[in-house]
Parts: sequence; C-alpha cells; structure tokens
Amino acid sequence: MASNGKYGSHPYAPSAPSLPESYGQQHTQYPHGYGRPQQQHNSSSSSPQYSHGYGQPQHQPYGSSFSSSSSSSYGQSGFPAGTDPAVIRSFEMVDRDRSGYIDEHELQQALSSGYQRFSLRTIRLLIFLFKSPTDSLRVGPKEFAALWICLGQWRSIFERYDKDRSGKIDSMELRDALYGLGLAMPPSVLQLLISKYDDGSGRRVELNFDSFVECGMIVRGLTDRFKEKDRRHAGSATFGYDEFMSMVIPFLVSYN
Amino acid sequence: MASNGKYGSHPYAPSAPSLPESYGQQHTQYPHGYGRPQQQHNSSSSSPQYSHGYGQPQHQPYGSSFSSSSSSSYGQSGFPAGTDPAVIRSFEMVDRDRSGYIDEHELQQALSSGYQRFSLRTIRLLIFLFKSPTDSLRVGPKEFAALWICLGQWRSIFERYDKDRSGKIDSMELRDALYGLGLAMPPSVLQLLISKYDDGSGRRVELNFDSFVECGMIVRGLTDRFKEKDRRHAGSATFGYDEFMSMVIPFLVSYN
Repeated sequence: MASNGKYGSHPYAPSAPSLPESYGQQHTQYPHGYGRPQQQHNSSSSSPQYSHGYGQPQHQPYGSSFSSSSSSSYGQSGFPAGTDPAVIRSFEMVDRDRSGYIDEHELQQALSSGYQRFSLRTIRLLIFLFKSPTDSLRVGPKEFAALWICLGQWRSIFERYDKDRSGKIDSMELRDALYGLGLAMPPSVLQLLISKYDDGSGRRVELNFDSFVECGMIVRGLTDRFKEKDRRHAGSATFGYDEFMSMVIPFLVSYN
Repeated sequence: MASNGKYGSHPYAPSAPSLPESYGQQHTQYPHGYGRPQQQHNSSSSSPQYSHGYGQPQHQPYGSSFSSSSSSSYGQSGFPAGTDPAVIRSFEMVDRDRSGYIDEHELQQALSSGYQRFSLRTIRLLIFLFKSPTDSLRVGPKEFAALWICLGQWRSIFERYDKDRSGKIDSMELRDALYGLGLAMPPSVLQLLISKYDDGSGRRVELNFDSFVECGMIVRGLTDRFKEKDRRHAGSATFGYDEFMSMVIPFLVSYN
C-alpha cells in the first residue's frame, strides 16, 4: 500500500507505513491520502497546515515490506525473507503449540520482548487491523513481521515528537505525531481524540506509546475505511446504515 | 423525542425511551426510527424481523418525561416536577459543593444507590449522551432525572430478556433486548457487537447490565447520529471526512 504513496512523505516528517495489504477487505488503491498533510512548498515550514490537501505521491522504500509482502519469499518459518531473527524468535517463543498463529495474549507477550506490554485493548485493535481478512482474531508470521516493522516506525515517530523525552506526548505533540504519520486532523477532531484519554484528574492529558498506537491506529483505520467509500476522492462518502454500523463498531470499546 | 413515536412500540416489547432533547445538537425529528423493528401484523409473532421496516409511530406516555422536559415545571432543586424524592436525594448526596452539577465520579456514585456501580466507561458514555450540548462533561438535575428514568426502563427490558435470571444476557438475549429497545440489528452487526465483549477465554459471551447499557447506548447513539444525516430517510447518509471523524470518535474507547 505504501508503495503507491498513499502516505507519502511531507517536508518535515517521514510518511508512516501503511497498514498491510490484508487490511481492508474491499481496499481500493488511492493515489492520495485523506487527512493527509498538504504538501508545503516551504520545506522549512514547521507549522502543519490542517487541510486535506493533496501532494504528489512518493515511493516509500520501507513501505515495500508491506506492499510487496504478497510476493515476498518465505522460509519454512513462514516469515518474509530477511526478517530479523529476533522477530522470528519473539513469535516462536509464544507460539508454543507451533500452530503458526498467535492469539491476543500471545501477541501481547511477543511484543513485550521488543517493545512493551501493550494493553489488551491496543492488542485487539492491532490484530483487527493486521490479521488476514479471512482469518479469525489471530496473526501468522507474515502479519507479525509487518506489525513489528510498523510499530518500530511508529515508535520512532513517537520519540521524535516526544520532544521532552517524557515517554508521553501531549495534545500538541500528538497533533505533530499524527501529522508525522501523514494524518492531518482538524483541531476539533484532535480535541475530541485527546479528550478520550482524559482521566478526569484535571491534569494535562498525555499519551504513552500504548495509547498513541491505539489512538493513531484508530484514526488510520477509520480514515482508510472512509477512503474506501469515497471513490470519487471528493472528501465525502455515502454509507448505508448496516454498512456504517459494521464499519464503526470494530473500532469501539472492547472488553478489558 | 419519544412523543413523536421515534421508538414506537412493537408487538412484544415496549419501546425504549429516547435520548433526551439535549442529545444531538442538530437533532432532526423523524416520524420513524432506523434499525427499528418492522411492525408485525401478527401480534403473536415472537420472531423479530431484522429489516429496517417502518411502523406507524405511537405516542409513548412515559416518553413525555423526555419530550416535555423543556416545558416541565421545576422546583428550587431544578428537578422536573414529580421527580421521585429518592432520585433527588441521590443527586444531592453526591453534589457536595451544591454546584447543581455532578461529574463522572459523582454520577457513578449517585447511580450506585439506585442501580449498580457502572464502569467509568459506561458513565462517560451516559454523560456524553445525556448532558446538555452546551455543557462540559457533567449533568444537572434535569439530565440526571432523565437518565435515571431511562436506566429504569432499560433495566426492565434487560430483565425481561434475561430469561434465565442469570444477571447476564447472551447474544440471542441481546438481540431480543435491542429489539425491545426498538433497535433491529442485522445478525452481522450483532455478531460484531457481541465480539467486543469476548474476553478471549473461549467461554460464551454474556453481557451484564453495565455492558448492556454501554452496548445499547452506543447503538442508539450511532443510530440517532446516522438518522440526523439521512434527511431523506433513504437508509443511507453522506458524510464529509471531518464530520465523519467527529461523529464517530466520541463513541470510541476512553481512558479507564
């Protein structure tokens, strides 16, 4: 997906990796992305323009780990050729029954070795977005490798915008980080988003990496779904009632 | 709202109360409801028809507690005339600073006296749906009274469909309970909804009253929002990207 420049880079941040091919059963290829930061002619500009401008798509080399995954060669392990052995070890360590698939608790444990212990809520969202459409709530080697690389790139973007190195980002840093992911959110939407993480203590809302991934994946997932319906790239889409409910519900609350 | 028959009754279950006037800033009056069970000519039928049929609206007396709330007389307490003193006591007990408003933690405590301790997730959803549009995340006497009555009616519907009196309802009982609330969900949407409450243990998914309220309020809220956009009552609605994101995000996960 990234190879079509869907989340092409912009002046001061690299584009985010796209979700894997497996995401979005009726996925439509788009030359441009929604909510994508407008290409800025002044490359030194540091003030994101929160419009839905369209920039020239650019090929993203690292995107190929997703976009060409279907044509990658696989070892006996089922991992794409060239997968970091540490990633394969993390997967095999938790896939005790050697089924070739890991469930939510196993994924939570596997990611802990490379990143951190994500909440089950975030884990479930990641599985929903990365699993094969035809699969149940589990991921195989190919999806796990794609997820691992994606999280690495999101981690680097999180760290770039966590300017004070607090391990948390505030609303302005979130705005910039989402922008870094190629998602330009209007202030009103950003405000709604950040308010979901307000613990009611009156303290300034800050997101750790777990919440940032959850938050960013929700925005990315909903944006991709919307795009699939906006076939004319008009910035608006029409949904039937059942279609609307079926599209939104997977992103809603889940048991935890 | 209920006075326009928006959630009129159907053969074997009473209609649910509508959300209060305060809900939905651009609320449009509709003679019929979305996802509303089709009126059945055979009143002895016990098999819901999961279409989006339209029935004749019927006036719901108890709905008047919402629909006429704006014209109700209020005592010094700010509660609608005739409000159960127990409801007023529950509110005043937690409104320690006598501000006339209660926040999420105070609402959680106030509802505990009449119902149960709801999760903060459900409490926040209830505040979002019942608060005055111009208000922050708090409710006053009028909204609290409306919420109390609504929960009472949802409780009776929950108990009606909790046939085995387990205090929990399974997916089939949820289907019937939502139908009892005037919300006919297609099986695919129901399946998605119930899967959000799967704890991954492999056990059959069951919802307690807290989860039922959360689940039902999400469906009701999203359905109402969709209706507001479907001005031609065509069963489909068109959204701009920002509008779509702003509409969906409030229903997404929140800190807990």
